[in-house]
Amino acid sequence: MASSFGKIFSITTFGESHGKGIGVVVDGVPSGIKLKEADIQKDLDRRRPGQSLMTTKRKEDDAVEILSGVFENMTTGAPVAMLIRNKDNDSRKYDEIRELYRPGHADYTYDKKYVLRDHRGGGRSSGRETACRVAAGAIAKKYLSARGIEITAATTEVQGVKAKQWISSQIENNPIRTADPNVAKEMEQCVLNAMKNADSVGGVVECRIEGLPVGLGEPLYDKLDAMLAHAMFSIGTIRGLTFGNGFDCTSLLGSENNDQMNKDGFMSNRCGGILGGLSNGMPISMRMAIKPTASIATIQQTVDLNGKESKIRVEGRHDPCICPRAVPVVEAMAAITLMDALLMSSSNNIA
Amino acid sequence: MASSFGKIFSITTFGESHGKGIGVVVDGVPSGIKLKEADIQKDLDRRRPGQSLMTTKRKEDDAVEILSGVFENMTTGAPVAMLIRNKDNDSRKYDEIRELYRPGHADYTYDKKYVLRDHRGGGRSSGRETACRVAAGAIAKKYLSARGIEITAATTEVQGVKAKQWISSQIENNPIRTADPNVAKEMEQCVLNAMKNADSVGGVVECRIEGLPVGLGEPLYDKLDAMLAHAMFSIGTIRGLTFGNGFDCTSLLGSENNDQMNKDGFMSNRCGGILGGLSNGMPISMRMAIKPTASIATIQQTVDLNGKESKIRVEGRHDPCICPRAVPVVEAMAAITLMDALLMSSSNNIA
Amino acid sequence: MASSFGKIFSITTFGESHGKGIGVVVDGVPSGIKLKEADIQKDLDRRRPGQSLMTTKRKEDDAVEILSGVFENMTTGAPVAMLIRNKDNDSRKYDEIRELYRPGHADYTYDKKYVLRDHRGGGRSSGRETACRVAAGAIAKKYLSARGIEITAATTEVQGVKAKQWISSQIENNPIRTADPNVAKEMEQCVLNAMKNADSVGGVVECRIEGLPVGLGEPLYDKLDAMLAHAMFSIGTIRGLTFGNGFDCTSLLGSENNDQMNKDGFMSNRCGGILGGLSNGMPISMRMAIKPTASIATIQQTVDLNGKESKIRVEGRHDPCICPRAVPVVEAMAAITLMDALLMSSSNNIA
Amino acid sequence: MASSFGKIFSITTFGESHGKGIGVVVDGVPSGIKLKEADIQKDLDRRRPGQSLMTTKRKEDDAVEILSGVFENMTTGAPVAMLIRNKDNDSRKYDEIRELYRPGHADYTYDKKYVLRDHRGGGRSSGRETACRVAAGAIAKKYLSARGIEITAATTEVQGVKAKQWISSQIENNPIRTADPNVAKEMEQCVLNAMKNADSVGGVVECRIEGLPVGLGEPLYDKLDAMLAHAMFSIGTIRGLTFGNGFDCTSLLGSENNDQMNKDGFMSNRCGGILGGLSNGMPISMRMAIKPTASIATIQQTVDLNGKESKIRVEGRHDPCICPRAVPVVEAMAAITLMDALLMSSSNNIA
Repeated sequence: MASSFGKIFSITTFGESHGKGIGVVVDGVPSGIKLKEADIQKDLDRRRPGQSLMTTKRKEDDAVEILSGVFENMTTGAPVAMLIRNKDNDSRKYDEIRELYRPGHADYTYDKKYVLRDHRGGGRSSGRETACRVAAGAIAKKYLSARGIEITAATTEVQGVKAKQWISSQIENNPIRTADPNVAKEMEQCVLNAMKNADSVGGVVECRIEGLPVGLGEPLYDKLDAMLAHAMFSIGTIRGLTFGNGFDCTSLLGSENNDQMNKDGFMSNRCGGILGGLSNGMPISMRMAIKPTASIATIQQTVDLNGKESKIRVEGRHDPCICPRAVPVVEAMAAITLMDALLMSSSNNIA
Repeated sequence: MASSFGKIFSITTFGESHGKGIGVVVDGVPSGIKLKEADIQKDLDRRRPGQSLMTTKRKEDDAVEILSGVFENMTTGAPVAMLIRNKDNDSRKYDEIRELYRPGHADYTYDKKYVLRDHRGGGRSSGRETACRVAAGAIAKKYLSARGIEITAATTEVQGVKAKQWISSQIENNPIRTADPNVAKEMEQCVLNAMKNADSVGGVVECRIEGLPVGLGEPLYDKLDAMLAHAMFSIGTIRGLTFGNGFDCTSLLGSENNDQMNKDGFMSNRCGGILGGLSNGMPISMRMAIKPTASIATIQQTVDLNGKESKIRVEGRHDPCICPRAVPVVEAMAAITLMDALLMSSSNNIA
Repeated sequence: MASSFGKIFSITTFGESHGKGIGVVVDGVPSGIKLKEADIQKDLDRRRPGQSLMTTKRKEDDAVEILSGVFENMTTGAPVAMLIRNKDNDSRKYDEIRELYRPGHADYTYDKKYVLRDHRGGGRSSGRETACRVAAGAIAKKYLSARGIEITAATTEVQGVKAKQWISSQIENNPIRTADPNVAKEMEQCVLNAMKNADSVGGVVECRIEGLPVGLGEPLYDKLDAMLAHAMFSIGTIRGLTFGNGFDCTSLLGSENNDQMNKDGFMSNRCGGILGGLSNGMPISMRMAIKPTASIATIQQTVDLNGKESKIRVEGRHDPCICPRAVPVVEAMAAITLMDALLMSSSNNIA
Repeated sequence: MASSFGKIFSITTFGESHGKGIGVVVDGVPSGIKLKEADIQKDLDRRRPGQSLMTTKRKEDDAVEILSGVFENMTTGAPVAMLIRNKDNDSRKYDEIRELYRPGHADYTYDKKYVLRDHRGGGRSSGRETACRVAAGAIAKKYLSARGIEITAATTEVQGVKAKQWISSQIENNPIRTADPNVAKEMEQCVLNAMKNADSVGGVVECRIEGLPVGLGEPLYDKLDAMLAHAMFSIGTIRGLTFGNGFDCTSLLGSENNDQMNKDGFMSNRCGGILGGLSNGMPISMRMAIKPTASIATIQQTVDLNGKESKIRVEGRHDPCICPRAVPVVEAMAAITLMDALLMSSSNNIA
């Protein structure tokens, strides 16, 4: 497995859904950041299960313990390890499907690759691991925020219902985490309908980054968009990613698509803040396709590990729409990527 | 800069558009691959400028010289270095825009990051570097092909005109490299119209990968989709990427989106061949948004390196649509990524 | 900081001497290794403080908890995280020297680099971190041992007293961990004398590796000797390293130094098992210079963090000779390096 | 193979002894360094064969061509690729020993690992590759020198004859490159005697580094000494390495070995400039055991690739003592390592 991400500011995560716990080691943390567990917990609470009707009913307080790297409430430059013990991991529901491959999950592919598999709640492939990303991201976000760099994600589409505006202050005011309060109820209804039918729905999460200096990214192979894409597709539920005007650019002329400049800077931002793989100082915007949660209590067709056909109903406690809980994960991975790019770029000063 | 890609099978490229030449060092090449320059040249010729009316008129034969790593026509395990000398690099056209930032290009961001810049033809940020990727990819493709893994890309959309079928054998029969001969002419006309108006058009390139074993990819952070996304967004012209049904999944229910299984395997392939970050044995499909070529001879507004406003007309010799020449580059980057994943996965055997 | 080592089989450690605990994430562990905490504890107990008169009196049971990566006593391929809580960390002795730089320690350099520093017991720079290496190394040793690869280290010199023979079975029978029972008492006496005088002594640790296949190592830059050297010098107390006949080769002729071959293989092993950066199937031998423990209760001259001169006496509880406890650490780092090399080399099969 | 070294400032080399040429891609070069081929050639000329009676008679002018990364005599931040064509590669002498394993060489181990092998002059394993290191190191040395960091290596021992003083200005005044003119002739005589007897001799090369800032190195795993050791042991002929007082520390007491401090700084430098894995501002000193050249024209016993016993006499044109030509290689690898550490450490600024 490859459990690390980042070159200078790097995270290494561990843990399974129903094991003893999950955790992360964050290396390359600059010394001198004020940090206490409450800084991390704040973001973890946004990702935590059981926040609303719309999220899994698993009861995890996801209390984080900082194990290292902080002395008298300041980072020392040493790796910051954080541990979250699993508590409410009722594995019994997984006993009966131990040998069945859940559709849309990594069960089949992990079995073929690793032969052995902790089947309980998806084991290592569970979305529960993303709590570690959120914990690490909280450090990055704090550092970036002190430099005027703000990262905000929101749900902009659920089962075809689209947000028409972006009011950042509204995002935490509705359980679907959309920035458009006008469609929040309608989105919510889609999710509740799916839940009622033992089904799930997909959606779109958008991420906006403001306040970046010009020049982050390391072309040609660690371009900022390439690194962000790597980070985003490392999240399990993402099936598509666009920057700026995305697929819309494919039907435009060059003269319509180029962002021209005048003395005040860029006159438009169709490219979404990245030019030649480097941040250009304009806001970065990314849109991600979030697939409907694979775990559904509807009966589906599958096979067991011997290839024998079977029916499966994935009981457990699952999010009918992953978008609202994906929002803090997307922010965290963006923050980790930007932090790494920022530290990396400090080594590029002209001789 | 970060000029390398890949962990075990890795490429390191160098060179500028108007410098002495471009090249690549391919490390981690297994010993015992039959290799001669003609194997590489074949793919380079597909990317070469001047193939048709629709591509830049720059005349480069892009003749590759293998400098190392091959002995008596066999790879030895040593790094394979390949060099392509630049020949038809007329830099005079760039003299007058030396201090101007071309819209849609990396000029502004490179200047801010590196202070110095080889402005001629975009220097290091030029698409010319992708010839190195194609050369390296040719080795990977040869290795993969011998194991039954085939990678095929094609243009599936140009300025809104969409392919409706995929006939692989047709791709090299039309200058736009579409797999649907029925729309080839219409696509071609879009490009010729744009060219006539000193403009350019965007499009979509799709890539299909068949014959993969189950289990390629290293979760959680080097998932196969994450690595492919990293590779694809390292190509300069890509603004969006989807796997399988992509953004369509966002309006589906879980029960509609999951790929169920029966004794013959997966009953559908909405996920596009990757499950939990690992290849699942089904064909991989990726769609990429290709932006309209930024270099256009239409007058645009810009600033010079002192921020003074100016008009610019990018003369040079440019592709009015980059899709047909992006096709072999996409294939190459996919091949390099898969080759690395394949070699990496050989270390995961059960104890 | 850089808290990771290894490319495929990689370790990431965290923790400080007097913080909450120390730990390690081991990534790239093949699935299917039988593993329980007792396997790890066995090696940890060899490194544990308080084993004999000759080691620090700090009382740590160093009880390891496996947090992840093991399911039903088998590794799953997921990262194995291990945690050791600190217990007997009496930090009061460090209060009075908080602002003083202990001679021979990292205090001064850490302060200059990181500005902030956890001064208690050396914080991150403490030798206590090596318990994490031993824990990770235990996994590697188990895997290697099952393939006939055995790694054995021993103290071969203490303050000039030299071992004259190598009887592996004797190593654990004396507190100095020498393989020559005839000199064990004399070595022991050197240590006890130093201890009595509030001083410390240095020595030599030798490591022998048997049963390696031919061809481990990745030339030219990850040669097996280069990787082992990287690993060994990452241990804090090592000031010199030789392979095979080491510095003796410098006064030999080529005809005296070369290892010739006959049909039975190599006729000598002056190179110490590595040829051209690759294992050659002969035993590997390394000798390491271990400096006298820097922490001594003798009065020394130093400065405080403002540069003011001062006297210092490092009280604490320290090993008067680090050799016996370095032995398992050297074995662990050798095992980790070889395991990584072994997994890496599995990707080099001829095409 | 692993043909790269360095994380931010990194080199990737290619080429074989008797192939078309050798070369290096240097990535992470800061923009704004004045650089022309003459800067590189100067160091290459120090490593070049045929400089004196004491070096191989192969006639290579080792003329370097900069292929990329430099524009109008300034580095641009883009990778600097450099190529040296092979000229005087007379491969006929190798025909008759094509299937024989030369004692002391990588022939046997490469054959076992890669099955195929370019046998001519050692192919990829030839010391000729070190010219690439010297070329890359010349860039690093120029950058470091402008910051007051000077790296100097010299031969301090040949076949037991030891230098007793270090006069830097003398090093280039004698063909053995010793800093002690009093022993230069005696050392030279050892080499000439060996040569006359179709034999070779070993020696010691020492490297001194002055002017380093405090704090270079990334503990715990990329400590400065660990990185330097990795670099040094990647050179083919090195069998031992010590820092500071090296193996002498093993017979000292802690009170004798620690470097105490007063208001003027460190009162001694037994540790050799590195404390806790970080540079401490004092000069770094390293001593390396250089084995006698393996290629000798004396008859030796060996086997062929089928295991059949044979006699071998390695004709070719070889250095009877590699020390004088190892000197610039050692300097280059030290410079590359320090440059990487310097760029890396710029990302550690306090928050």
